[in-house]
Amino acid sequence: MILVIYLIAITAEAMSGALAAGRRNMDIFGVVVIAFVTALGGGTIRDMVLGNYPIGWTQHPPYVYLVVSAGLLTTVIARFMKRMKHLFLLLDAMGLIAFSLIGSDVAIRLGYDPLVVVMAGMITGISGGILRDVLCNQVPVVFRRELYASVSMTVCLLYLGLQWLEVSIGTSTAICFAGGLALRLAAIRFGWRLPVFSYQERWE
Amino acid sequence: MILVIYLIAITAEAMSGALAAGRRNMDIFGVVVIAFVTALGGGTIRDMVLGNYPIGWTQHPPYVYLVVSAGLLTTVIARFMKRMKHLFLLLDAMGLIAFSLIGSDVAIRLGYDPLVVVMAGMITGISGGILRDVLCNQVPVVFRRELYASVSMTVCLLYLGLQWLEVSIGTSTAICFAGGLALRLAAIRFGWRLPVFSYQERWE
Amino acid sequence: MILVIYLIAITAEAMSGALAAGRRNMDIFGVVVIAFVTALGGGTIRDMVLGNYPIGWTQHPPYVYLVVSAGLLTTVIARFMKRMKHLFLLLDAMGLIAFSLIGSDVAIRLGYDPLVVVMAGMITGISGGILRDVLCNQVPVVFRRELYASVSMTVCLLYLGLQWLEVSIGTSTAICFAGGLALRLAAIRFGWRLPVFSYQERWE
Repeated sequence: MILVIYLIAITAEAMSGALAAGRRNMDIFGVVVIAFVTALGGGTIRDMVLGNYPIGWTQHPPYVYLVVSAGLLTTVIARFMKRMKHLFLLLDAMGLIAFSLIGSDVAIRLGYDPLVVVMAGMITGISGGILRDVLCNQVPVVFRRELYASVSMTVCLLYLGLQWLEVSIGTSTAICFAGGLALRLAAIRFGWRLPVFSYQERWE
Repeated sequence: MILVIYLIAITAEAMSGALAAGRRNMDIFGVVVIAFVTALGGGTIRDMVLGNYPIGWTQHPPYVYLVVSAGLLTTVIARFMKRMKHLFLLLDAMGLIAFSLIGSDVAIRLGYDPLVVVMAGMITGISGGILRDVLCNQVPVVFRRELYASVSMTVCLLYLGLQWLEVSIGTSTAICFAGGLALRLAAIRFGWRLPVFSYQERWE
Repeated sequence: MILVIYLIAITAEAMSGALAAGRRNMDIFGVVVIAFVTALGGGTIRDMVLGNYPIGWTQHPPYVYLVVSAGLLTTVIARFMKRMKHLFLLLDAMGLIAFSLIGSDVAIRLGYDPLVVVMAGMITGISGGILRDVLCNQVPVVFRRELYASVSMTVCLLYLGLQWLEVSIGTSTAICFAGGLALRLAAIRFGWRLPVFSYQERWE
């Protein structure tokens, strides 16, 4: 079940990467790289930080073919994607939660501290998008959009809490999914954002 | 002793990250991420390059809580920080030297070549700030400010030299601190900079 | 033989990094860092992704001294480099192919899947230049120039194919070199590019 959602997630992330590449007029190769990095970069950074070798996608070539195909397909269907905006946001939200849960699981399995478990979930959920934005030469949107990283953090904390209460993995996952999805969709719908910190003085 | 200075250092670095995030109007989450990356990113990159797992902060959750708190606190006290400019530059200089010495020690302990020891010290000292600037979408300031990376290099070379002369760790550390701090503060005071390389032809 | 070409390659890459730093008016230290990252960053990322520790340059200090020297030398001879444009492009093409073959070899030796072998070759070949451009705050040129990454991919695929056909390493390397060089030089000469994906709608 979580595998299916993971595959949907990396597909959605790859498409978001391809669109970002298109905004910078990149060539087909650039599109594929940005799609790959957006979809699989978060897990790669998590594995490098946790020392979890070999890194996931190196053992699962089909994941790589999937995100490359999704990136290329995006260049063909981009003109229709605006109409699918709501579907796309839904898939992206599902991806965020799937990434967070998978990332937490990796850190739990390696015996890391609960804090590191939550951070591993968040790193998996958001750093693909951060790499995408850095490679496209813009300030990462995750640092100033509606609740997104906060959803990842909430899901990871909830997951840890349910495991601590000895709720079964299946039930925990379902609860985290429902809760996380509700929170993210409400944030989009009502424009919930974290407070912004503006500081314009220069003296350093 | 070096631990106390390390804690001061990551606090000062976290605050510098939070201010940079504020200049880009990031939300609270962005502030926390940039604070974390600025303070602990240098050590993370060093550990990933040297293959030194598990990475430092994953074994010391209090360090993470400290830098997150420092980042959040900065959003509250930012308006007063300009007046503390000199204190801030002093803490930052102490942090640079502490990071350099700690980074060198890690590479020495792992048995790396002296060149790698110096580079490990410099990576620890400056790459947190480089990551901060990349995430804030600007050319890293360390590549064009007063002597900074050079101070890190000088401190690492001095430290290696003193160890080679079999001076005790405590004495070496004290000498490096005094020398490094004097050099950095003099560089700020007198505006010492490395020569700049300007090249504007386009042909590649 | 491949070692000699590798040394030429990292020298050429270091010089390209130094010129990019000069375009951003960096100081001598910035020049050296960008030269180092451009020349040795691709191999570093490959090793970190494949978990191939210790990382290459940490075991070969002369490589580091070579790229640092090349970076510094560039600041002196930059004014004459425009006239050597064709030589420079030739060295850069040789470097791209040497990096690709060396990167493929590392992944083959570690027993990775053929897909990962090709990706390891490409990561070695192009990510130094990507890091250079990110640190210089611009969209990586490799995402929009004449055939470059595609040459790396072609060379890696050809190399794998020849090994599968049990052609000797020496012959395979020579064939890949000749083919890759011909393809890259033809791409420069005739301006061959991959199709570009432009997408300017904003709705995400």
